Amino acid sequence: MSLPVAPENLFASDNFSGVHPRYLEAIARANHGHQMAYGADSFTGQAVDLFSQLCDMDVEVLFCFGGTGANVVALGSLLGTAESVVCSEWAHIQVDETGAPEKFLGIKLQDLVSPNAKITPDQLREVAGALGNVHHVQPGVVSITQSTELGTLYSVAEISALCDTAHSYGMRVHLDGARIANAVAALGGDADTFREMTFGAGVDAVSFGGTKNAMLGAEAVLLRRDTSNPRAAFIRKQTTQLPSKMRYASAQFVEALSDGLWIETATTANSRAVQLYSLVADLNIGLTGAPEVNSLYPFLAPPIKKLLQEWSFFWDWDLPSSQVRWMASWDTSQEDVERFATGVKAAIETFS
Amino acid sequence: MSLPVAPENLFASDNFSGVHPRYLEAIARANHGHQMAYGADSFTGQAVDLFSQLCDMDVEVLFCFGGTGANVVALGSLLGTAESVVCSEWAHIQVDETGAPEKFLGIKLQDLVSPNAKITPDQLREVAGALGNVHHVQPGVVSITQSTELGTLYSVAEISALCDTAHSYGMRVHLDGARIANAVAALGGDADTFREMTFGAGVDAVSFGGTKNAMLGAEAVLLRRDTSNPRAAFIRKQTTQLPSKMRYASAQFVEALSDGLWIETATTANSRAVQLYSLVADLNIGLTGAPEVNSLYPFLAPPIKKLLQEWSFFWDWDLPSSQVRWMASWDTSQEDVERFATGVKAAIETFS
Amino acid sequence: MSLPVAPENLFASDNFSGVHPRYLEAIARANHGHQMAYGADSFTGQAVDLFSQLCDMDVEVLFCFGGTGANVVALGSLLGTAESVVCSEWAHIQVDETGAPEKFLGIKLQDLVSPNAKITPDQLREVAGALGNVHHVQPGVVSITQSTELGTLYSVAEISALCDTAHSYGMRVHLDGARIANAVAALGGDADTFREMTFGAGVDAVSFGGTKNAMLGAEAVLLRRDTSNPRAAFIRKQTTQLPSKMRYASAQFVEALSDGLWIETATTANSRAVQLYSLVADLNIGLTGAPEVNSLYPFLAPPIKKLLQEWSFFWDWDLPSSQVRWMASWDTSQEDVERFATGVKAAIETFS
Amino acid sequence: MSLPVAPENLFASDNFSGVHPRYLEAIARANHGHQMAYGADSFTGQAVDLFSQLCDMDVEVLFCFGGTGANVVALGSLLGTAESVVCSEWAHIQVDETGAPEKFLGIKLQDLVSPNAKITPDQLREVAGALGNVHHVQPGVVSITQSTELGTLYSVAEISALCDTAHSYGMRVHLDGARIANAVAALGGDADTFREMTFGAGVDAVSFGGTKNAMLGAEAVLLRRDTSNPRAAFIRKQTTQLPSKMRYASAQFVEALSDGLWIETATTANSRAVQLYSLVADLNIGLTGAPEVNSLYPFLAPPIKKLLQEWSFFWDWDLPSSQVRWMASWDTSQEDVERFATGVKAAIETFS
Repeated sequence: MSLPVAPENLFASDNFSGVHPRYLEAIARANHGHQMAYGADSFTGQAVDLFSQLCDMDVEVLFCFGGTGANVVALGSLLGTAESVVCSEWAHIQVDETGAPEKFLGIKLQDLVSPNAKITPDQLREVAGALGNVHHVQPGVVSITQSTELGTLYSVAEISALCDTAHSYGMRVHLDGARIANAVAALGGDADTFREMTFGAGVDAVSFGGTKNAMLGAEAVLLRRDTSNPRAAFIRKQTTQLPSKMRYASAQFVEALSDGLWIETATTANSRAVQLYSLVADLNIGLTGAPEVNSLYPFLAPPIKKLLQEWSFFWDWDLPSSQVRWMASWDTSQEDVERFATGVKAAIETFS
Repeated sequence: MSLPVAPENLFASDNFSGVHPRYLEAIARANHGHQMAYGADSFTGQAVDLFSQLCDMDVEVLFCFGGTGANVVALGSLLGTAESVVCSEWAHIQVDETGAPEKFLGIKLQDLVSPNAKITPDQLREVAGALGNVHHVQPGVVSITQSTELGTLYSVAEISALCDTAHSYGMRVHLDGARIANAVAALGGDADTFREMTFGAGVDAVSFGGTKNAMLGAEAVLLRRDTSNPRAAFIRKQTTQLPSKMRYASAQFVEALSDGLWIETATTANSRAVQLYSLVADLNIGLTGAPEVNSLYPFLAPPIKKLLQEWSFFWDWDLPSSQVRWMASWDTSQEDVERFATGVKAAIETFS
Repeated sequence: MSLPVAPENLFASDNFSGVHPRYLEAIARANHGHQMAYGADSFTGQAVDLFSQLCDMDVEVLFCFGGTGANVVALGSLLGTAESVVCSEWAHIQVDETGAPEKFLGIKLQDLVSPNAKITPDQLREVAGALGNVHHVQPGVVSITQSTELGTLYSVAEISALCDTAHSYGMRVHLDGARIANAVAALGGDADTFREMTFGAGVDAVSFGGTKNAMLGAEAVLLRRDTSNPRAAFIRKQTTQLPSKMRYASAQFVEALSDGLWIETATTANSRAVQLYSLVADLNIGLTGAPEVNSLYPFLAPPIKKLLQEWSFFWDWDLPSSQVRWMASWDTSQEDVERFATGVKAAIETFS
Repeated sequence: MSLPVAPENLFASDNFSGVHPRYLEAIARANHGHQMAYGADSFTGQAVDLFSQLCDMDVEVLFCFGGTGANVVALGSLLGTAESVVCSEWAHIQVDETGAPEKFLGIKLQDLVSPNAKITPDQLREVAGALGNVHHVQPGVVSITQSTELGTLYSVAEISALCDTAHSYGMRVHLDGARIANAVAALGGDADTFREMTFGAGVDAVSFGGTKNAMLGAEAVLLRRDTSNPRAAFIRKQTTQLPSKMRYASAQFVEALSDGLWIETATTANSRAVQLYSLVADLNIGLTGAPEVNSLYPFLAPPIKKLLQEWSFFWDWDLPSSQVRWMASWDTSQEDVERFATGVKAAIETFS
């Protein structure tokens, strides 16, 4: 029962991948002499300008260390008194952050049933029924993820509709963009695409992910100035997300935004997932269509799964149904894809 | 009123300095292929082992992004119900963290009068009077800083005495070591020195600083397993201080600990401060002795101060008394020191 | 379209009812001279003894002002680091406390689908899957309500099974007994009944309700000493639930517990609900059986509902389905029941 | 060594005293039939009106269970993002609330040195230096106590000056009036006195104490609508301070405010303290003048102290200096005063 040579890179998570060489070079370039700490350096100013250009408006940009931290900062910058955050039952903030938002912000997350990890305006209308009643938390912020934790995408029209509904009740909208680059790559691939699905659609705050997209400890929170807390920078500091030597994060964002590298890496990741799909689509593993972004969720019989995970590790997704997740990254090569597909086929044949 | 050529590097803060080239190289070496996220990588295991050797005991090691975060994680890992943290009035956690410990942990900090930023066993005995009284917060954790925010040092005997007194009341002891390397360099300069002033003296948790000592976004929390929370790793996650791509922090610590680089850089910073002192000691600027670690706190008449700050920036320390802070870093060169001292003398002469 | 004379007392809520005269007399009797504050008075000692007898074990008893406060104190006394509270989607703590548990305790509530407001051991097994994973909150406390927010009851066997399952995963069990007296009255009616459904079944903490059961600002938290926080009294103080003049709450509990008045009042409330049911059971208002405790949840066509609410107010329960809640109290009289039933019939006839 | 007959009531604390009969009667009068819960009853409306008259403006009135709770609600209603509360080192919120404000609000209290428990505009100017600096908490609310925890009083002019200074920096002012009635009785004795020292002087929120002044579980938070949180009622609910059967607290405030009973009881307490002073003033126990309100802080040699505390209990105030506190209450009689003074003299003579 021997499998072919395993791929060099795993299909486990984009968190397993490395840092793009250009980001390491940007860090090295930033490493000359002394610079003011906490964002008063020259790189940070440049990165903020590039984000303002990307958004085509004067946004507040808060660089952070990590994704959970960025989400807490963004939510904290939008929340008012006695308010809850409304999100999908699959949301990273709900499932994968160990209650960090509740712990730091002292709030309730109201998670909504959402088989494809997307929520709807009708669901917002329903939770809005609690507004004004002193016995219930007040839905104050809607948090959506783009691309979602299930690898699905909101269309620009869907985001727009959610924002309109939310705003009609006085709620604000947060977009968790840990994989926003993958969404942008999938839905148009340029700065306009980003604008349209975020601030153009009415989003009030974006967690702009860097780490899953080839960067080193670099995330950004983007805030509309008119709907977010003017003391958002204090919230970042209290959340322990203010980097003292901020230039090293900023320099990476300068590199990412100056020529579209951030979209390029995500495009690669998405393409690799589609390539993988095309090579395994005719296997009987429950795939119903090409991936929208960079992950597939096939079903594998337990012995096949075990064999493959020992050969080239990937995560279980849903144990009872024996569903797994395969995820491509910016550094997944065509050869990785081919080797992996070959191994999958071999494993399935072994047990057939 | 012209001053000589300004030094290349500022005497403003060790937060202004860059990253040591060896740490950038360590990052680059760690940047090959995929690695498990969140600390299950090979570098993290190695770094943890090196910390256990350094401490000569099996400590729990939690790598973090930043210093404030490390402090919150460490304090949270020591605190019990309704407990306060007792610290100096000058403590970074009290003065410079925007209430992050109070916000995240929901606790009171009890700051003690301490002209040299050091607290005493007698002061602990006094606050211990509240123990058992349901109307008062219960002093539960004592936090000391080594070297202190005023550039002073606790002796090993002093730390020992504080730990003994704290433990006699059931309190635990945290050591904020944002500049622990400078203290180690000043008081002995090897691993034994570290051990003696921390776990050897009875300390229960250490925030081990990297960022101010030439590293990139790398701090570590070291915890005695028998007196800290077994769920400390969950506290790190909730504090938003769990790096997904942890290998890049860990690889730096491997580099730092494998041959004493972390002490070497701090030794340089301390030496530069002493050299600066020796060049300005006979000026009438209120210096009462050589610096214990890497900072000096002279008094400058306002016009002199203004002239110098415009020439080579440094921070005010106490505005009413016109006291300032000069701080050397790992990358401060001998030429920086000489140029700076020459400038100071010139400025003082200008106004005399 | 005229209705008969309205009942003197409403069927809106047991929160609308008054205080039993015997409790006012107990307060008056306690009102002589000075007494130590904060529970060091003679009445509190007596009340604690009576609770220990009721529970047949040495419980910690913490008198509180209100029900939400009692729940927060009880949950806080059971929770550990990074833990969540698991409860029904209908739980008062989830729906009706404006996020007070999340705000004060900084925790996530994990609400479970539960059409009859009761949760099951299988559901606990499912959430237990997250135990040990640093990315997920750790289910630590299971909170059940007896009688539930939907007027249903757990059997002793059901509570036992939940406690066994919870304990097998290291979780603790809280019972929100805002209406525990109604449950006791329904399932046996004496102290044994109480013991069996609480500590006898394995429950670790009980919020023992007084206010909905004819008392004035008096609730009690009962805690097993071996599984709850030894600093629970500090948690009560921090929750702002420590009454300074505690004797007035304690004196009422002495009165309630000395001869079973607390069960007597609940028995009356339950009986009135059953009587009401017997008078309206044959109307076509969706009632499927006699109430288990003191509330009915009929469906009324909107015009009938409107007419009746204006005549004798009661609350909507589910607007979309036009379901309402009728609730009897300790002071609901037989005449109140008859008048109310007569009115309901008249209203229905009016529109038929 | 025998002392005369001990007084019937203690001089330990106004928390030890009972409830005024008129308040029990008011409760009994409110105890008829059903009333809407949570403040929608007729008594609450009436009490709110009376408070608006007292304040001569439309204030938001939030009835609460207890004093610590009222303080947390009031502070929470004034605080903004990343803000601290500035107070005296003697403040009840700082010393006697077990960190409840920090726990619930997640904030820092900045306590100021204040030998007589009063803070000054100059001290506010000093803390205001941190405004705008992202590394420091932002002083946002100033909390003063009237009468203070040391039995001293702010003059109206002093409160005015503090409010002016606070407002000039954008800070809001909270007055902890757990003993506001004693202050009003001492400084004028009518509604105007109250108005002048609170909203007239610029105060933004008042914790209006009832419990220490003869009431049963009844406190009120009074808020200027233009400077406090429009969701203050939600904060009360989250703080677990919303009484369901609010009518019983409200009815007492109706009784208190309708003819000045609240001032009358405080006047009695103050007078008794002055009478006691006049009887012991020439003893050598360190009293430097008549009490401003209802407490005296004499110094007693340890054996005298012990003898007296066993005879008629009172609290130690400062153990090292053997200072104690004697406090009169609304129900302290002239005979209590005479007996107590006689006992004190006898005890002193015994040891002389």
